[in-house]
Amino acid sequence: MAKTTTYQDAGVSITANARWVARIQSAMRSTHDIRVCSRAGAFAGLFRLDFDERPLRRRYEKPVLVGCADGVGTKVLLGIKTGRLRGLGIDLVAMNVNDLITCGAEPLFFLDYLAVHEIDPDRLSEIVEGIAEGCRQAGCALLGGETAEMPDLYQKGHLDLAGFATGVVEQTRVIDGRRASPGDMLIGLASNGIHSNGYTLVRRLIREHRLRLNHCYEKLSETLAEVLLRPTRIYVTPVLGVLNKYHTKRPVTGMAHITGGGLPENVARMLPDGCAAEIDTRSWTPPPIFPFLQNLGVQRHEMFRVFNMGIGFVLAVKPRFVSGVMKVLNAGGESATIIGRVKRGRRGVKLM
Amino acid sequence: MAKTTTYQDAGVSITANARWVARIQSAMRSTHDIRVCSRAGAFAGLFRLDFDERPLRRRYEKPVLVGCADGVGTKVLLGIKTGRLRGLGIDLVAMNVNDLITCGAEPLFFLDYLAVHEIDPDRLSEIVEGIAEGCRQAGCALLGGETAEMPDLYQKGHLDLAGFATGVVEQTRVIDGRRASPGDMLIGLASNGIHSNGYTLVRRLIREHRLRLNHCYEKLSETLAEVLLRPTRIYVTPVLGVLNKYHTKRPVTGMAHITGGGLPENVARMLPDGCAAEIDTRSWTPPPIFPFLQNLGVQRHEMFRVFNMGIGFVLAVKPRFVSGVMKVLNAGGESATIIGRVKRGRRGVKLM
Repeated sequence: MAKTTTYQDAGVSITANARWVARIQSAMRSTHDIRVCSRAGAFAGLFRLDFDERPLRRRYEKPVLVGCADGVGTKVLLGIKTGRLRGLGIDLVAMNVNDLITCGAEPLFFLDYLAVHEIDPDRLSEIVEGIAEGCRQAGCALLGGETAEMPDLYQKGHLDLAGFATGVVEQTRVIDGRRASPGDMLIGLASNGIHSNGYTLVRRLIREHRLRLNHCYEKLSETLAEVLLRPTRIYVTPVLGVLNKYHTKRPVTGMAHITGGGLPENVARMLPDGCAAEIDTRSWTPPPIFPFLQNLGVQRHEMFRVFNMGIGFVLAVKPRFVSGVMKVLNAGGESATIIGRVKRGRRGVKLM
Repeated sequence: MAKTTTYQDAGVSITANARWVARIQSAMRSTHDIRVCSRAGAFAGLFRLDFDERPLRRRYEKPVLVGCADGVGTKVLLGIKTGRLRGLGIDLVAMNVNDLITCGAEPLFFLDYLAVHEIDPDRLSEIVEGIAEGCRQAGCALLGGETAEMPDLYQKGHLDLAGFATGVVEQTRVIDGRRASPGDMLIGLASNGIHSNGYTLVRRLIREHRLRLNHCYEKLSETLAEVLLRPTRIYVTPVLGVLNKYHTKRPVTGMAHITGGGLPENVARMLPDGCAAEIDTRSWTPPPIFPFLQNLGVQRHEMFRVFNMGIGFVLAVKPRFVSGVMKVLNAGGESATIIGRVKRGRRGVKLM
């Protein structure tokens, strides 16, 4: 009768559940290092903050813990419709860890909540394997989670996902939106598509224009489903790479993860009062999916408020470090572009 | 068009959203102490682990972080049906922090995910105020969260809740299910009813027997709705009280939060190999709701596998400390009873 299972609970006797728990535990183990010290069957996941063993040695002087919660929004419905579930797991991790690193934190561990009509181990394994893949990309441990089977709340085939990330940053190294100042340059990191925001508009456009998800439209080099369900890019490695490389000089003064609200709302969140951002939208070329959607009849202004438009993450950097930071980012495989600057003015973002 | 809001994001312009965000921020603030150091509008919540300021001074030598994720299962459907939403917020916190403390950890912060058909600030405020109330009871900060409005995934009026708690425990003080040994006594803490497990069975019984939720049945001193929607008891204060009182002697060798699977499955999770628990079910009297449900035709065995049967939390305690621990618990307002003992044997629970 128990309709929920706890990931750590290997003692569940129902067969589908047992198979499901085994799959989850295997996915979890693929993300663990020696810092994870909880037993299978425990009520909670345990993670050592400090540890002396090399090569992962860590010692925090004044650790500030960082917590995020997020879902993947209505992208989940498009994933269900097209049977592309694995990427949703990566999206879920990405939405959380990309938020987490904006304050300078390194992700430590992740937990998920997966609510379903019924536990179908094969189908759900795809999601959990995606979550584990996202955790490996972000260098964090999948420490636990919860699967809730609720047929009266979720329609047949439906499911929802929520994720939670915990990270840590030294108190002296917190980037908290008070450090940016006029003259700082804005470096944009390319997105790989729509990421996980704006799908309510995307789905409306699909309905109104009767778009075929399996069709390869002329302007796109893949099927629409492939473009729309591509997992959100995870920026942990390049961003922590920059922060660690300039450990004492601290050239990064602010960071923004471009989610709902687009560049205007999210870049504003990383600025202190008295600072405005000026972004030159001609400094990069949005991927083909954005003009494709815009041509279906969306105002340019709305496009920038709903979508990332090709820039998934923004760093404000002191001017004399810009070329060095750009080199580190590009060497790490990012496509980094100078997209604007911080000016004196009322807090806000001006798109040019 | 942005259909999700981040709690920290005070910049959302849509009116209902703005009102909702204001309510959330007020609820969040009611749970914060000086350890919370994130700004409104930040992408993530920040929480200082160590801090020097009195009276809350904390210094962790070898901190082990603890993470939990949980929902409230199908109790949410009964809460929606009866319009009793506030308690669901307390349930959500309880399900997580009661798991968290089993390893000896103190809760630090909590985040929630709230998925709804539509954002109705008045209705959802009840839930968030319940979450804040639960956080205050558990002594943890509501650090952030996510509200997702997804009309195509949730039916009108429907919603779902997930929660996530982070805590900390000194490495030398972790209670990890390896410490219990034969001779230890089991102390049970009274539940205040069904808590948050077994509602799939409860709802089936309501349907089959056409029970009236607003009726005050003879065997119950309140309406069925009042009994069934009572928020889960939070055991943080009494349990941490015991752990802190016996700081060096460490008399508590294992703890279990009694959730899905009941006493048999959950007490088994706190035992090492080679240890069995013997529980004398005559040592306490289950609250009236349990015989009420059992009399509708549920096997006694099934009752114990699905419900807590009146015991919400179990501590294994070294024999010579039992009376002292009982005194601390009862003085703190708990109803503590010796319900059994740990014996040599195959890991499992024997109900007598």
